[in-house]
Amino acid sequence: MHDPILLTPGPLTTSATVKQAMLRDWGSRDSAFIAMNAAIRARLPELAGAAESHVCVPVQGSGTFAVEATIGTLLTRGAKLLVLINGAYGRRMKKIAEVMGRAVEALEWAEDRPVDPTALDRRLAEDPRVTHVAVVHCETTSGILNPVEAVAEVAARHGRHLLIDAMSSFGALPLDASAVPFTALMASSNKCLEGAPGMGFALIRRDVLTFSEGNAHSLSLDLYDQWRGFEQNAQWRFTPPTHVIAAFAQALDEHAAEGGVAGRGARYAANHRTLVDGMEAMGFRCLLPRALQAPIIVTFHMPADPAFVFADFYDRLRERGFAIYPGKLTVADSFRIGCIGRIGAAEIGAALEAIRLTLDEMGVASGAPAAAIAA
Amino acid sequence: MHDPILLTPGPLTTSATVKQAMLRDWGSRDSAFIAMNAAIRARLPELAGAAESHVCVPVQGSGTFAVEATIGTLLTRGAKLLVLINGAYGRRMKKIAEVMGRAVEALEWAEDRPVDPTALDRRLAEDPRVTHVAVVHCETTSGILNPVEAVAEVAARHGRHLLIDAMSSFGALPLDASAVPFTALMASSNKCLEGAPGMGFALIRRDVLTFSEGNAHSLSLDLYDQWRGFEQNAQWRFTPPTHVIAAFAQALDEHAAEGGVAGRGARYAANHRTLVDGMEAMGFRCLLPRALQAPIIVTFHMPADPAFVFADFYDRLRERGFAIYPGKLTVADSFRIGCIGRIGAAEIGAALEAIRLTLDEMGVASGAPAAAIAA
Repeated sequence: MHDPILLTPGPLTTSATVKQAMLRDWGSRDSAFIAMNAAIRARLPELAGAAESHVCVPVQGSGTFAVEATIGTLLTRGAKLLVLINGAYGRRMKKIAEVMGRAVEALEWAEDRPVDPTALDRRLAEDPRVTHVAVVHCETTSGILNPVEAVAEVAARHGRHLLIDAMSSFGALPLDASAVPFTALMASSNKCLEGAPGMGFALIRRDVLTFSEGNAHSLSLDLYDQWRGFEQNAQWRFTPPTHVIAAFAQALDEHAAEGGVAGRGARYAANHRTLVDGMEAMGFRCLLPRALQAPIIVTFHMPADPAFVFADFYDRLRERGFAIYPGKLTVADSFRIGCIGRIGAAEIGAALEAIRLTLDEMGVASGAPAAAIAA
Repeated sequence: MHDPILLTPGPLTTSATVKQAMLRDWGSRDSAFIAMNAAIRARLPELAGAAESHVCVPVQGSGTFAVEATIGTLLTRGAKLLVLINGAYGRRMKKIAEVMGRAVEALEWAEDRPVDPTALDRRLAEDPRVTHVAVVHCETTSGILNPVEAVAEVAARHGRHLLIDAMSSFGALPLDASAVPFTALMASSNKCLEGAPGMGFALIRRDVLTFSEGNAHSLSLDLYDQWRGFEQNAQWRFTPPTHVIAAFAQALDEHAAEGGVAGRGARYAANHRTLVDGMEAMGFRCLLPRALQAPIIVTFHMPADPAFVFADFYDRLRERGFAIYPGKLTVADSFRIGCIGRIGAAEIGAALEAIRLTLDEMGVASGAPAAAIAA
């Protein structure tokens, strides 16, 4: 059985060697496993130039668990969170704070617009009660890249804490704590680090985490307690996903071997160019201008040709061995194709060829959307 | 590199075929993966005779995440939880409720005593504000089996909800919803079901869960929302641990092939007898009388021989390929050896031989504890 290539924002295609790392059972309190975790916790802050200032606190579950754990652990009961929203992941952070009963507000933009640091500047000047600002680096909803540098500069100037959801960018898009000051950054084992899904992590300023005892709304998601546990005996408080962690250690080795963030980012950028060039040659049009588009996942307008039925297109591509991302945005009739994971020019080329054959089969003459035809 | 045999209460030794099921990448919104999840969700309630009455809601993370999610989802803000405590996992449930700010009290027993249904009966008669009772089926702290049938009878007679932490018993010790009425039962993919760690699940009465919207203290751990998500599109709300789930599907196949709960339980019971007989032949003594001891993990008194140094014993056994459980109980100087996971007579026999050789090497004449020598 040949597995499909996953052209989604995750779970994504991982290397054979990453998956093979899951062929062993580890005792969670055994010294070999403890050493592996210590190595992972030391390496992740280095990828963000944060080894001196931040600590890495992993947590079981999906990336959302890491986001919720970070918000719950860092916001005191009197804190107020301001979330910058231009997609589903920003909305989710607001929802997380609402469910846990913390004060939260949002600034919102359409899904095809980056968040605006000027608006943040005004809001922070108006509202001194805002203690924390949250932003998504690459909003996977559209694939848009938000200006985190400028957002960080504004937050720092106003003396507010910044939380960055870097779930779908960490490890491929550069983000250095010296240039982009953040209190916390949340990401996961999956996505651009190309491990298996099952754990998230936060990089948190040590001087802030030190004073975060008793904030959390949840025992499982208390990153202060989780951190103290690691500091005390280098062990997870609760059963860790041992196989996923072993895969993650291997994935980090492969990330380093590829040249770290620069190397990984270069491959994704090449994937992205090849994908967009190939799709545009078939008439498809991107939702976002290239300057706003991160090389992670690309949103295409739905073609105007009445012969194009997305569910049919999805199924036929899946039959050919490619799983793209189902579902669309609220701002425009669209579909998405990811360009991350253990894939390169060969896989993107094969995907484009499969799309060409599928359009032919469906009798779709062009991928052009209504707007492009009208213009 | 030969992996050690894990003689712990989990993570434990899994079969090669369970681990090999992690060699594929799955798209989390792809139909093949969706079908696999639906099959898992259908099978688990059947193991507890609860297919008609209960629904299965899986959740990312460790078993503790499932316990916290269940408590958070089922307790309304005005509810009061009474936890029956005779070990670390009972204490953890109390802590979970405290952190989330719900009213909680406990009845406590020593770690070598089962919880007492008569005391529960009295307390429930005295305190009508208690809405939920929580108990651990097999308290992994000592390996003691709690009388869940009698506890369930008392809770039912008083009309209170019962939550059973069946983490280390589910799939090996029989527990049928018709004989042991429960509102919720929590367990995990690891432990007696012999999957990889990384997800937990709860079996929850459908008629209760239906009215549990908005209770949860956490978005990630909201099992009402999680259930609605599965009911709507058969998908996880947030990225699932795809590889761990594929391993779990395989583990459930192997559980059925072994004869389900009866077959799995019989193998563990045989492991337990062989282990205890062999250890007693070397002079070791169990903390618990056999009638109270579940065939999951066995607590042995620490030997009195001054040549026996536990850390040394642990390391030498580990060198020989066996990882036992480090750490001891509060009630007695002791150590623990697990008898669950993909192990049988051969592995237990080899472990006993390794223990014999290790005692010889250390110059320990007998495993007898001080009490046994004095008596």
